[in-house]
Amino acid sequence: MGLKTKEEYIESLRQMKPLAYMFGEKITNIVDNPRLRAGIEATAATYELSEMDEYRDLLVTQSPLINEPVNRFTLPPGSIEDLVARVKINRTLGNWVGTCHQRCTGLDCLSALSIVTYDIDQKYDTNYFERFKEFLKYVQKNDLTCNAGVTDVKGDRSLSPHEQEDKDMYLHVVERRDDGVIVRGAKAHQTGSLSSHEIIVLPTRALGKGDEDYAVAFAIPNDSPGLIHIVGRSSLDTRELDGCDTGNIRYSKYCPTVIFDDVFVPWERVFMCGEVEFAVEMVVKFSSYHRQSHGGCKSGKIDCMTGAALTMMDYSGTAKASHLKQKVIDMIHRAETLYGCSLAASYEGNKQPSGTYFIDTILANASKIHEGKEMAEATRLMVDICGGFVADLPSDKDIENPEIGHLVKKYLKGSKDAPVEDRIKMFRFVEKMAMESADTISDIHGGGSPEAHRVTIFRESDIEKKKNAAKRLAGIEED
Amino acid sequence: MGLKTKEEYIESLRQMKPLAYMFGEKITNIVDNPRLRAGIEATAATYELSEMDEYRDLLVTQSPLINEPVNRFTLPPGSIEDLVARVKINRTLGNWVGTCHQRCTGLDCLSALSIVTYDIDQKYDTNYFERFKEFLKYVQKNDLTCNAGVTDVKGDRSLSPHEQEDKDMYLHVVERRDDGVIVRGAKAHQTGSLSSHEIIVLPTRALGKGDEDYAVAFAIPNDSPGLIHIVGRSSLDTRELDGCDTGNIRYSKYCPTVIFDDVFVPWERVFMCGEVEFAVEMVVKFSSYHRQSHGGCKSGKIDCMTGAALTMMDYSGTAKASHLKQKVIDMIHRAETLYGCSLAASYEGNKQPSGTYFIDTILANASKIHEGKEMAEATRLMVDICGGFVADLPSDKDIENPEIGHLVKKYLKGSKDAPVEDRIKMFRFVEKMAMESADTISDIHGGGSPEAHRVTIFRESDIEKKKNAAKRLAGIEED
Amino acid sequence: MGLKTKEEYIESLRQMKPLAYMFGEKITNIVDNPRLRAGIEATAATYELSEMDEYRDLLVTQSPLINEPVNRFTLPPGSIEDLVARVKINRTLGNWVGTCHQRCTGLDCLSALSIVTYDIDQKYDTNYFERFKEFLKYVQKNDLTCNAGVTDVKGDRSLSPHEQEDKDMYLHVVERRDDGVIVRGAKAHQTGSLSSHEIIVLPTRALGKGDEDYAVAFAIPNDSPGLIHIVGRSSLDTRELDGCDTGNIRYSKYCPTVIFDDVFVPWERVFMCGEVEFAVEMVVKFSSYHRQSHGGCKSGKIDCMTGAALTMMDYSGTAKASHLKQKVIDMIHRAETLYGCSLAASYEGNKQPSGTYFIDTILANASKIHEGKEMAEATRLMVDICGGFVADLPSDKDIENPEIGHLVKKYLKGSKDAPVEDRIKMFRFVEKMAMESADTISDIHGGGSPEAHRVTIFRESDIEKKKNAAKRLAGIEED
Amino acid sequence: MGLKTKEEYIESLRQMKPLAYMFGEKITNIVDNPRLRAGIEATAATYELSEMDEYRDLLVTQSPLINEPVNRFTLPPGSIEDLVARVKINRTLGNWVGTCHQRCTGLDCLSALSIVTYDIDQKYDTNYFERFKEFLKYVQKNDLTCNAGVTDVKGDRSLSPHEQEDKDMYLHVVERRDDGVIVRGAKAHQTGSLSSHEIIVLPTRALGKGDEDYAVAFAIPNDSPGLIHIVGRSSLDTRELDGCDTGNIRYSKYCPTVIFDDVFVPWERVFMCGEVEFAVEMVVKFSSYHRQSHGGCKSGKIDCMTGAALTMMDYSGTAKASHLKQKVIDMIHRAETLYGCSLAASYEGNKQPSGTYFIDTILANASKIHEGKEMAEATRLMVDICGGFVADLPSDKDIENPEIGHLVKKYLKGSKDAPVEDRIKMFRFVEKMAMESADTISDIHGGGSPEAHRVTIFRESDIEKKKNAAKRLAGIEED
Repeated sequence: MGLKTKEEYIESLRQMKPLAYMFGEKITNIVDNPRLRAGIEATAATYELSEMDEYRDLLVTQSPLINEPVNRFTLPPGSIEDLVARVKINRTLGNWVGTCHQRCTGLDCLSALSIVTYDIDQKYDTNYFERFKEFLKYVQKNDLTCNAGVTDVKGDRSLSPHEQEDKDMYLHVVERRDDGVIVRGAKAHQTGSLSSHEIIVLPTRALGKGDEDYAVAFAIPNDSPGLIHIVGRSSLDTRELDGCDTGNIRYSKYCPTVIFDDVFVPWERVFMCGEVEFAVEMVVKFSSYHRQSHGGCKSGKIDCMTGAALTMMDYSGTAKASHLKQKVIDMIHRAETLYGCSLAASYEGNKQPSGTYFIDTILANASKIHEGKEMAEATRLMVDICGGFVADLPSDKDIENPEIGHLVKKYLKGSKDAPVEDRIKMFRFVEKMAMESADTISDIHGGGSPEAHRVTIFRESDIEKKKNAAKRLAGIEED
Repeated sequence: MGLKTKEEYIESLRQMKPLAYMFGEKITNIVDNPRLRAGIEATAATYELSEMDEYRDLLVTQSPLINEPVNRFTLPPGSIEDLVARVKINRTLGNWVGTCHQRCTGLDCLSALSIVTYDIDQKYDTNYFERFKEFLKYVQKNDLTCNAGVTDVKGDRSLSPHEQEDKDMYLHVVERRDDGVIVRGAKAHQTGSLSSHEIIVLPTRALGKGDEDYAVAFAIPNDSPGLIHIVGRSSLDTRELDGCDTGNIRYSKYCPTVIFDDVFVPWERVFMCGEVEFAVEMVVKFSSYHRQSHGGCKSGKIDCMTGAALTMMDYSGTAKASHLKQKVIDMIHRAETLYGCSLAASYEGNKQPSGTYFIDTILANASKIHEGKEMAEATRLMVDICGGFVADLPSDKDIENPEIGHLVKKYLKGSKDAPVEDRIKMFRFVEKMAMESADTISDIHGGGSPEAHRVTIFRESDIEKKKNAAKRLAGIEED
Repeated sequence: MGLKTKEEYIESLRQMKPLAYMFGEKITNIVDNPRLRAGIEATAATYELSEMDEYRDLLVTQSPLINEPVNRFTLPPGSIEDLVARVKINRTLGNWVGTCHQRCTGLDCLSALSIVTYDIDQKYDTNYFERFKEFLKYVQKNDLTCNAGVTDVKGDRSLSPHEQEDKDMYLHVVERRDDGVIVRGAKAHQTGSLSSHEIIVLPTRALGKGDEDYAVAFAIPNDSPGLIHIVGRSSLDTRELDGCDTGNIRYSKYCPTVIFDDVFVPWERVFMCGEVEFAVEMVVKFSSYHRQSHGGCKSGKIDCMTGAALTMMDYSGTAKASHLKQKVIDMIHRAETLYGCSLAASYEGNKQPSGTYFIDTILANASKIHEGKEMAEATRLMVDICGGFVADLPSDKDIENPEIGHLVKKYLKGSKDAPVEDRIKMFRFVEKMAMESADTISDIHGGGSPEAHRVTIFRESDIEKKKNAAKRLAGIEED
Repeated sequence: MGLKTKEEYIESLRQMKPLAYMFGEKITNIVDNPRLRAGIEATAATYELSEMDEYRDLLVTQSPLINEPVNRFTLPPGSIEDLVARVKINRTLGNWVGTCHQRCTGLDCLSALSIVTYDIDQKYDTNYFERFKEFLKYVQKNDLTCNAGVTDVKGDRSLSPHEQEDKDMYLHVVERRDDGVIVRGAKAHQTGSLSSHEIIVLPTRALGKGDEDYAVAFAIPNDSPGLIHIVGRSSLDTRELDGCDTGNIRYSKYCPTVIFDDVFVPWERVFMCGEVEFAVEMVVKFSSYHRQSHGGCKSGKIDCMTGAALTMMDYSGTAKASHLKQKVIDMIHRAETLYGCSLAASYEGNKQPSGTYFIDTILANASKIHEGKEMAEATRLMVDICGGFVADLPSDKDIENPEIGHLVKKYLKGSKDAPVEDRIKMFRFVEKMAMESADTISDIHGGGSPEAHRVTIFRESDIEKKKNAAKRLAGIEED
């Protein structure tokens, strides 16, 4: 037990036997499937960096719960310093993998549970918090990766869970037994579910009267009976399967839909069951943490995109074009905006009753609103700078073809000092960052959709205070 | 001879034997290759609509050159009405195919040549215009599709063509013979080169002293000896090859790099040869026409994206969400802006010495500047409205799998009245429109890169007039 | 009778005796009040240009109604050419006066009435159209300027007119007599009401059952008994009163609130009375015309702002700064977008039953949506380029002061070749264009507020057609 | 000595006898001039709040230099906490006064000097740091307000200071004497120079060889012989002079040009003299601090604008309009972005050799780039929400006029529960915030013009690190 090395992490996944499908076929060897492995490698980077001298101090800290060094991805924040570390780690890792590393969501669930289970106990005299702490110890001692089973498939979005024609459109308890509960439903966009040891489930929305069975939170292994992972299509998925033209030669991302086809959850792993009025708190806490996380990793990804754009300028002889430099600055500015607002959200955090530290919600959402709009703009700027071969670069197989390979290389050459092979690789990497759907769509929909972030900053702002400031200066007697 | 039907068009392509490679392999049957066929079908739509009662009047007109009805894609504009028709046809077709139909570039070349060959003749007493008219008659009589061989690979962009270390980075004449010239070089992003009967080559940039060999324009069949079409990678290309999860079930786009490996061009097909000072006019005329074209087809594509977003709102039960309706309006506004500026550019066109009508350059570029920025925004809005399954929708093969297919369908169901199969198809179509690289990158780089459009509107604006207006009102004596 | 010269126009205003207040005082000599005169001069420019060789052909045309040459500002459009001329004249005049010329709104009312009175007559067998034509003849024969009394003060905007606590918050008929009607209410933002001979009143919004008395349209002289013009405050209004630091040395704008304190309107001047269901058509026609007008005049104003920015670059030695040139291009692009969309709206116009030509509503509103957002951005760019003296330039009186004048001039000097006096004048003009409220606020609220333009393009778009295009391509059977 | 009350502050200004002109006239009683007094009141708020229970802890802290409680506006930051307090105080005050409080610039000068004088001493063995500390003690003990004499008038901006035709276009030393130096030049946009006790002068730009005389920093009383304050024109300046329609009934801003007409500075007040290579550090330190300050005060101003918009929605019956609520959210988002980035810049600060804490430059500039663009957008949104009376509201004098006052009030009434007087006041306040030039132009040009902020984030970013991250992921061997 204790901190896992990258190799131990991968080996530990190899021991699990989840039921998984991809493109209509059952996948029995998850770890060696090249499409999935590229995603697993991204999560493995969170282990790898914890072993590296340069990053260990950033990633590893002492857990007050088990009194051992732990990877921060298993540690609900217990101080402002912990909150800030989350953002800095995510930027470092976003930059290191150039995509989503897929381990933050589990931590965001752990962090939310570490607050809300305590709050429920206060009201109902339940013992969720103790159960949760036991689970957390297990996670910390084994340096596990957890997945966030939050986003239900939702069915008709104009209806609440219990109003749906098919009651399973939101995950819910279908049977309560002495030893636990049986749940049914499906969670979509389960980034890295097969790279995770544990699946943590939380409600996806505020719940009301009639929705009691939907107010359920728990954690189970990713190979629990009844769990089915269906790896959906992403735009460049066959590149990894074919082992060619991958762009990012190390890492990628995949997002299964995970179906809970009557899955048993033992009581000791149930962290909420029926307390509908706490669903909203669970959602707000999880999603706010997750929006803060994005401010780190996405700014790290823009760093990669900026680096790619600048390198391509070197390679193509456009390094001195002032209009391109302006576009690079626009990219940098977007990265720093996400980062700045997320950092501020961390520094302005506060201690919750359970002892966990929570971020400033308004600032975290301010960051995410920018992400939802500006990642697309940063991507567009990168493509503008890099040129049209992002669309239609010949394949590495063309380059290897003896009849035409020399011609392809001849005509893809840029500036004299840049090896043509490097220029080709960089074009391919830009294509990956710009056109890979699993990662880019999360810019918009990760951590809740854009409107959710907007509603949040309005709800959390002190509207009356603002009105009164205006009235005082206008000479109107304040309310 | 005369107007071709869709079937005749495809059959005519089958008679051609271009040398083509894709993903490292030689492709001998172009027409039946599913990846290429999807592109050919898009161009075929320009023939198909000319046969349909609803669209014939829009697409077919009488050619004053051959005194026969012709498809407008073979007709350089001879009136304001012709200019306007270009935009309306392109919007209709962009909407019809939901991607690039790939036949406008050839017309844009024909239109540019119909102006500039005349102008060169006036100065040098050459007979390019006559040669060109003969070629045009051939194109019109056979209802041919032409490809625009404009974009050179460019090498080091800080150097002019003759300064490059490798002189072939811009296509140029390497030998002049009695019967014609031998040319060498490569043209990138050759949208639909294998869907075309003829490849028209124009210079890609302004040229100066020392660049004489690069000042060359001509037309040759797409299966001329020495021509090599290398179909590059696009983000969703294997979908069509696998015949699964294509999204747009009818149409797609592909963009080869075309290498001219010492290709012979007979003199009667040479339309410019050495008149360097006319290169800039050729480029400006072609690219301005092409930017006008984009204003039509891209607004038509936004129409599809808007329709997809609205349909998805119906399917998901979000049709009444006011924030989504606002986003739909933002999409419509972008479409109409592109369309409006391109239409205005057409109506404000003018007659050139050769008799061809040319558009208002400032307004055409105003449209293109919006396209370069706002297509990405329209796409982002569509993804925002439609939700996260754009990233990771299970494959049709998952749905066909007897073990999980029923579960996938169960959980992808949206509102009661929307068949789940339709919702899945629409998600897949949205993925195609959002994440397909060959088409989306052309929003940015088609018709020249964004900075080119900006430089153009500055250069074409009457700066002194603007200054004098300000001075008069400020009370400053005008210059 | 016939076309008025500028002098005749001003003299004709002098003959009128409207009841007017400004800053709490009754104004008896309108024409010679320097604040009002600056606005009158702007409208006078519409007369002045009709006398100038350079512009006469643009502004003067033959009226089919009176068979005489008329100023186009009295001519409802009878052809596409007339629609296009509107935009071009407005751009010319916007550029000529650097602010609002204030005569377009009256024409927009005449144009709307020339359509809707006819349509009402068709349904109700009334004779509004004949009455209107008689009025129009009078306007044309006397080359009159009309004011658009459209915007009611509105009271509580969540209530319809007849639901208001004070029934006078929308102008309405309070008494019907044999010889005419008595009306009561107030119209806000009455640009140039004192520069107009006639006040034309239209409803400001769609009306329904219960609102019959509010469905009233008519025209009366600006000095009719009971009419009170109250000239509101604008940001720089005292500059003109003091005759110092005016910025635009020739022209300005003012916007009274006009109160109808039981005003009599004879029947021959009533063009609608009680036909509630036609209110919406009246509003849509007027406002769409007016949004088209803005596309002309506001692009003309950006021309002035661009000229000012470029001149200031010359004066300050920053003409070669590439980042400033980029900002100038951003300004030009905005001007051309407004212009392009408005032009397209004109060229795509259509003939109405009465014979009047109406514009394409979607394109006219597309232009206005840009105006509502982008005029502010163009202004910001101008200020960015020109520098901080827009905020706090010393007064001309400081320059005239013998103790400090030489020092002010010494230190405001820019580049060697630019006279310091000219640089000071240009700073002052930039201040006027950036910070004058009467004109800049109309960028946002003129022709209806931004949301109205957005709602319009959604309502006018063919939503089902868009959906069906998407469904066909996705493989979904169309409805 | 010690902390001053608001009254003591104003009384202390009354003791000073600066030479000041406004609109061509000498102003002898600064404090009671209503235009200037409104600005002085804004600065006085920094004293007033230090006396209030609610704010004292925020504004007052112990000075390690004099071991007494001081107002934080006299304290160069000695810790991260001090840096953070700057932003929070500025937001509080920006919200309190609804405009610029004008005391931050002096602190930003003190902070820059507290770093750079130390650094110069290290290199040259000078004793600037000691001199500066003596001055700082004097400022702290007397709770003085200082002005930032930074922005030179600049002449021809394409030339460096010593290249100018008139050598005085940048302030410089014209004579060195035993007891001090004589300086000449002019500083523009001297916000609150007459509200300050001391004028601190720093260079405005990087300097090089030949510019030695321009490398000068010092502090002198605002009534030193030879100093001339010329209060420039702002858009609403006569409102305060007339005591009517002021909008913000308490506070305003004014910005003189201050001319140094051969002013003597004793050596003990000279903090830099000839060390040209330190000019750039002085500028970077000052301007970075000042950009951080803006992130606070401008977000506080948006709070006021948001409050005004929301109040107007209440008053006009539009509180439930979803599109207006979306605009309010857009405003809030902009405020929080400025605030978040500035806070992050503070928390990520670092200790300089002298012991002073300096902010993170990239994040501070990221905030300012947003300000330069988004304050204008926030303003536009406020105007959009509030309606057209921002442009042309009748004067309070109209309301007081017995003939029309009752009509004005009748027709300006909004929703039933809102007193019409309050609605009028709020319109006036919105006009002030939107259209007052002295404050709004500083959104763009305060703390250096937008391009300066952009250049800074590029220069300060680790470009090579970004490139290497991209290369590693693309599979390119890193440099």
